Amino acid sequence: MTGLNETHDPALRSWVASANEPAGDFPIQNLPFGIFRRRGAGEPWRGGVAIGNQVLDLAAVARIAPFEGMAGRALQSASADRLNGLMALGPAAWSQLRLALSRALRQGAKEQPLLENCLVPQAQAEHEVPALVGDYTDFYTSIHHATNIGRQFRPDNPLLPNYKWVPIGYHGRSSSLGISGEAFARPQGQTMAPGAARPAVGPSRRLDIELELGIWIGAGNARGEPIPIDRAEEHVFGISLLNDWSARDIQAWEYQPLGPFLSKSFATTLSPWIVTLEALEPFRAPLERPDGDPSPLQYLDSPQVRSRGAFDIALQVELQTARMGQAGIPAASISTTNYRHAYWTAAQLVAHHTVNGCNLRPGDLFGSGTLSGPTLAQAAALIELTEAGKHPVQLPGGETRTWLEDGDTVTLRGRCERAGAARIGFGPCTGTVLPARG
Amino acid sequence: MTGLNETHDPALRSWVASANEPAGDFPIQNLPFGIFRRRGAGEPWRGGVAIGNQVLDLAAVARIAPFEGMAGRALQSASADRLNGLMALGPAAWSQLRLALSRALRQGAKEQPLLENCLVPQAQAEHEVPALVGDYTDFYTSIHHATNIGRQFRPDNPLLPNYKWVPIGYHGRSSSLGISGEAFARPQGQTMAPGAARPAVGPSRRLDIELELGIWIGAGNARGEPIPIDRAEEHVFGISLLNDWSARDIQAWEYQPLGPFLSKSFATTLSPWIVTLEALEPFRAPLERPDGDPSPLQYLDSPQVRSRGAFDIALQVELQTARMGQAGIPAASISTTNYRHAYWTAAQLVAHHTVNGCNLRPGDLFGSGTLSGPTLAQAAALIELTEAGKHPVQLPGGETRTWLEDGDTVTLRGRCERAGAARIGFGPCTGTVLPARG
Repeated sequence: MTGLNETHDPALRSWVASANEPAGDFPIQNLPFGIFRRRGAGEPWRGGVAIGNQVLDLAAVARIAPFEGMAGRALQSASADRLNGLMALGPAAWSQLRLALSRALRQGAKEQPLLENCLVPQAQAEHEVPALVGDYTDFYTSIHHATNIGRQFRPDNPLLPNYKWVPIGYHGRSSSLGISGEAFARPQGQTMAPGAARPAVGPSRRLDIELELGIWIGAGNARGEPIPIDRAEEHVFGISLLNDWSARDIQAWEYQPLGPFLSKSFATTLSPWIVTLEALEPFRAPLERPDGDPSPLQYLDSPQVRSRGAFDIALQVELQTARMGQAGIPAASISTTNYRHAYWTAAQLVAHHTVNGCNLRPGDLFGSGTLSGPTLAQAAALIELTEAGKHPVQLPGGETRTWLEDGDTVTLRGRCERAGAARIGFGPCTGTVLPARG
Repeated sequence: MTGLNETHDPALRSWVASANEPAGDFPIQNLPFGIFRRRGAGEPWRGGVAIGNQVLDLAAVARIAPFEGMAGRALQSASADRLNGLMALGPAAWSQLRLALSRALRQGAKEQPLLENCLVPQAQAEHEVPALVGDYTDFYTSIHHATNIGRQFRPDNPLLPNYKWVPIGYHGRSSSLGISGEAFARPQGQTMAPGAARPAVGPSRRLDIELELGIWIGAGNARGEPIPIDRAEEHVFGISLLNDWSARDIQAWEYQPLGPFLSKSFATTLSPWIVTLEALEPFRAPLERPDGDPSPLQYLDSPQVRSRGAFDIALQVELQTARMGQAGIPAASISTTNYRHAYWTAAQLVAHHTVNGCNLRPGDLFGSGTLSGPTLAQAAALIELTEAGKHPVQLPGGETRTWLEDGDTVTLRGRCERAGAARIGFGPCTGTVLPARG
């Protein structure tokens, strides 16, 4: 990465007035990419950039006020119906496009009169999963989540022996990835009650959330050619929020010996905006490792990983029940955590995923795994927050939740704040549980 | 499915003379689909059908002698660079295209003079993975494989309690799917030797094969809408051979608690030809279930599944070492088994995969799982054949194998034979192990 540059200057202001409001997610220092169209207008999907409460229509910019050189080629790629082409171009092109967008959106930019015609209010936009995801891999990077879950099965020995050596991951389902604002039916499946003679089939009764980040792969690698740790971040385009909805009762019965399957594959919800790694540059943090833990193996280690491989992203889970919504009670925060607590960095995930020669492709997606922090209040799934049902979550309005109920809406939020940098955010990642199909 | 029809008539002969040789895989009763081009000719990929030792070029047929009606539309779809479009059309279109091809390729067909210009010798063809695979799911349908593997970890209780209820499966890696004839570097990764204090990183020393079938999904389903068992086969386009290469030492260290990952994702090899379910119609078999085993749960059960849900496909694994090749010793058979021993049918896999609302898409791929039969000679992986190294496989020329060595070439074969039906085959599925990347 290029480090800090003029696009990060906290003094920058945009001629899009809403981008200059101090509490907003999308100031000119952010410039996240997504796929959008005007809702109900029969328009094609195309790339856009969030700026304040607007979307800058990149296909319109490419027509009306195209950029020159590498930024222009990147702009053209970003005008397509998915971002895979832009992702394939690599970090130099992404950075040139970001710089051109930053300059064109600044107060006083000569492009303002043309680009004013390229704005769509976010309130009028709908979104699609921003890339065709060839493969979706879900990791398990929070040692706190792994410990909390492990304790429920093995109180004396919660963490498995491989955890501190192997960035544990498994393949997830691409087809059921969806975008913020979606609703999905409670999944049905096999469950085995304790002491029962045979499994039952029906709606899951232990539906849960998992607060994760989605890490988007940019340029890929050829099969057989591992990506070395020092080059790994060059292959990461950016980061979204991701809710890995999980049916715990289905999971408990199905997961031995090959891992979770139908307990996860019914729906996974992404936020529409991908915050680029370059936008996250001011929020780097050192790798958190308790004293006495083993050093990462050589293919997973570098000075860069240790000193600045993590990202300080504050994360939150909000829940609003149907009854709260009807009573006008806003969504309640049930967990706050931070990505900097992850045991493995994004670069380590890339290096590990490819060490065996596995090829990544532009638009591949990694889930970070549930990002629980060190305390119980930082647990990022209900199974942890409630200790598998022992302590239901208390909600304003008097309701409690052990597991999700029909009509519940969950919203994930993420933001980065640091002295000397402009605050940036991810926008919401929202999903609603519908009753099981009759 | 439509049952037997004129395309299955064993008396049919083709004007392509090589299709009438009795020991061939591709008589006129087979007509499997694949993607091909002439090797080194700079041609586009397009659909083809294997007939004798030739490929019928479907794009050429669509230009020169197009079919009418639904068969014509299917032919047009099959002319594309991948078969996803054909797969999406559903069984009525597949069947109409098969019927038109069968009639046009028969002795005496009026189309012969035109179609003779649409043949490419298989010896001149190269192949690609026949569809863009949105998701690849690997199952575990051989109870004999599950028992053999489980016995190595739990001698007294080899089979887990969920096995006879749940068609166990997990997500596999799509990006590293390759086509017969490929070679791949031995994967590197983390392994933990017994008693070692820390893991080592290096080339796998326990590289194995898994003889599987690849089940190709045709028309998909909408997210949230399960496919009922009685309609499940309508969503299956056909079947290929599949070698799920596995690094057992990497797998043993990484797989807890989320399942196999890098131990499998370096390469998975498919045979180029997809034998349609309609071509397999004469080779149906009843579901094999030992007395006393539980009945399948309702969403996995039907009279059709029980009486004719399985397929009688004889399968074989052949191994040729580099030294055998140099000495002119042909590949040796090291295992023979049969798909009819699978505990779960293809229809049951479809119904199970979608019971939670997960959406399948045209071109999705299921692996059957390692198809070991009831006896040790029918074991379909070295870890079973050698009992994890205790009894190396003896090869002609004096070599032995516990695990695969560099230069080894593995070939899978499949064929269907039954009195009163024409024999059909799958063509070879071959892959070669190269040394690890230096």
